Amino acid sequence: MEGNNRKSGIIRLKRCPSIIGHAAAVGKKEHEGPLGAQFDYHDATDRFGQKTWELSEGEMQHIALNLALAKAKVPADSLGALFAGDLINQCTSSSYGLLDINAPFFGLYGACSTSAEGLILASLWMNSTESGSAAVVTSSHNCSAERQFRFPVEYGGIRTPTSQWTVTGAAAFILGDGQGAYITELMPGKSIDRGITDPNNMGAAMAPAAVDTLTRYFRESGMKPSDFDAIFTGDLGFEGHSIVNEMMCADGINLSDNYLDCGLLIYDREGQDMHAGGSGCGCSASVLSAYILPKLEKGEYHDILFVATGALMSPMLVLQGQSIPGIAHLVRITKERNL
Amino acid sequence: MEGNNRKSGIIRLKRCPSIIGHAAAVGKKEHEGPLGAQFDYHDATDRFGQKTWELSEGEMQHIALNLALAKAKVPADSLGALFAGDLINQCTSSSYGLLDINAPFFGLYGACSTSAEGLILASLWMNSTESGSAAVVTSSHNCSAERQFRFPVEYGGIRTPTSQWTVTGAAAFILGDGQGAYITELMPGKSIDRGITDPNNMGAAMAPAAVDTLTRYFRESGMKPSDFDAIFTGDLGFEGHSIVNEMMCADGINLSDNYLDCGLLIYDREGQDMHAGGSGCGCSASVLSAYILPKLEKGEYHDILFVATGALMSPMLVLQGQSIPGIAHLVRITKERNL
Repeated sequence: MEGNNRKSGIIRLKRCPSIIGHAAAVGKKEHEGPLGAQFDYHDATDRFGQKTWELSEGEMQHIALNLALAKAKVPADSLGALFAGDLINQCTSSSYGLLDINAPFFGLYGACSTSAEGLILASLWMNSTESGSAAVVTSSHNCSAERQFRFPVEYGGIRTPTSQWTVTGAAAFILGDGQGAYITELMPGKSIDRGITDPNNMGAAMAPAAVDTLTRYFRESGMKPSDFDAIFTGDLGFEGHSIVNEMMCADGINLSDNYLDCGLLIYDREGQDMHAGGSGCGCSASVLSAYILPKLEKGEYHDILFVATGALMSPMLVLQGQSIPGIAHLVRITKERNL
Repeated sequence: MEGNNRKSGIIRLKRCPSIIGHAAAVGKKEHEGPLGAQFDYHDATDRFGQKTWELSEGEMQHIALNLALAKAKVPADSLGALFAGDLINQCTSSSYGLLDINAPFFGLYGACSTSAEGLILASLWMNSTESGSAAVVTSSHNCSAERQFRFPVEYGGIRTPTSQWTVTGAAAFILGDGQGAYITELMPGKSIDRGITDPNNMGAAMAPAAVDTLTRYFRESGMKPSDFDAIFTGDLGFEGHSIVNEMMCADGINLSDNYLDCGLLIYDREGQDMHAGGSGCGCSASVLSAYILPKLEKGEYHDILFVATGALMSPMLVLQGQSIPGIAHLVRITKERNL
């Protein structure tokens, strides 16, 4: 499947940046979920003091970035670069929410894989400039996403069993050379399209991309799933998580023991009636900040794989009968600098 | 304005990648313009064999990338990474148009600044991995952009004198270590908002960002405009070009002698009734490929600044009364590797 291996390469970083500060700001349902107490900030109205959902989402990014900068003790005006993106058309939450941050700005579009795309590009930034820091910020908001991708929430559309709930959440990560978990390896994803046309089954659209990236990683590294404390996919939810388990197993790689999905961790799926689980750029990002990184910092984990997944879906192209490509970017994060 | 200078830094590359292949594919009006004969490919129907404008735009990217790969003699399946973006919601032209390219994919959103954002990130990629190549692709299509940002073309809306014409064009650039012009310095832009709320005056929205980047560049480098053969902004058009000239002059930097704008070069503005000139991701990208790089390759230019500008505009946020932030990313390109 991969053709020439030169382009499939794992990137082993010379300068392994550490995540010296991170924070997550979330909405009501996320705060009511099993990770509720671990988020840094929540707003039970989901509005974050703003008049429109798009501005609310931007404000969440702003809050998350400021909290992360404070924890990292990095003043906003010494930030080397800012990598940000979201789901809303023209990446508007990132552009407007972060407007007062006076730093070089790189807008990204990786759908729900944006957290890992940003961590990869920020790591490359740290490895090819003399910059002392870089920030990665991403978000999603249930109400801005629903009206853009499906129906406005006021419409009360019935959701299918395979549909996921877009997380209202933003997270920010500050990369630098201080204390914190280390980013040691990267494997950027490829666009993979296996013909899924149902926009209410994002898990199935993204799963083949996660399988492609994980398979390439294990083949090239010679490692196996049990070499890691845990392997996280972004937001495949119940459907996508099952598909990845099955496809990897068919490929001779047994993931089941320590394979988790951020979309399954963030909600009590049945208790909160969340159908297939959480999704959105804010899903994997806020779980990374609130759940995964604290375990690395406390020493409960020493070595994990974080594989954020995205469905590169356009509602316009779905109406035009096109299928939905997926992508999955991998970041290896370790407690110690040297593996 | 800049605060701490550490973040305003010019990036001087250790490994200066060369642009070993590049190509542009354009539509009817672009082919009829003054640069018409210099584009590699055109389609007088603007459809590129596709049924919808979004798919036409994707196909333009595909054509431009394949032509550039052929010129660079780089097989598609040995491409190290692909950096791509466009204006259409969820960057759909890039995701769908480049789906059959089996390379690590980074989706970008920098509005019309995407060409330079991509060249910057691809240069960082070349400087922090052992990868032998990377591609940058971007596009815009008049018909897909009009229906997304303003009105479907069938509506026949009257355009204001300050409005620009979104270029139907795509360009691709292959970075490697062979023959070609060299990328030697980078200065990523910051989001700048000076309160412009008129979505028909993108030039005014983007001009302050171009001024911010150029001013920072000249201050930090100690160079002056006349040290360069030419300075190009992306697609400010007549309005924005005048504003930049005036603002820079007020700041003590006289640009007028060799300052050009891609949005003014691509059309015969009066003869083709193009109002303020061209715009769109495809504007600066196709002018870079068809006009600027050939002059560097032939030795007519030795040292230029390419400053692609973008309006980080969301129609939704404009309807909500928000102003339009701009951004401008700078790339210095030279004929010789050593300055």
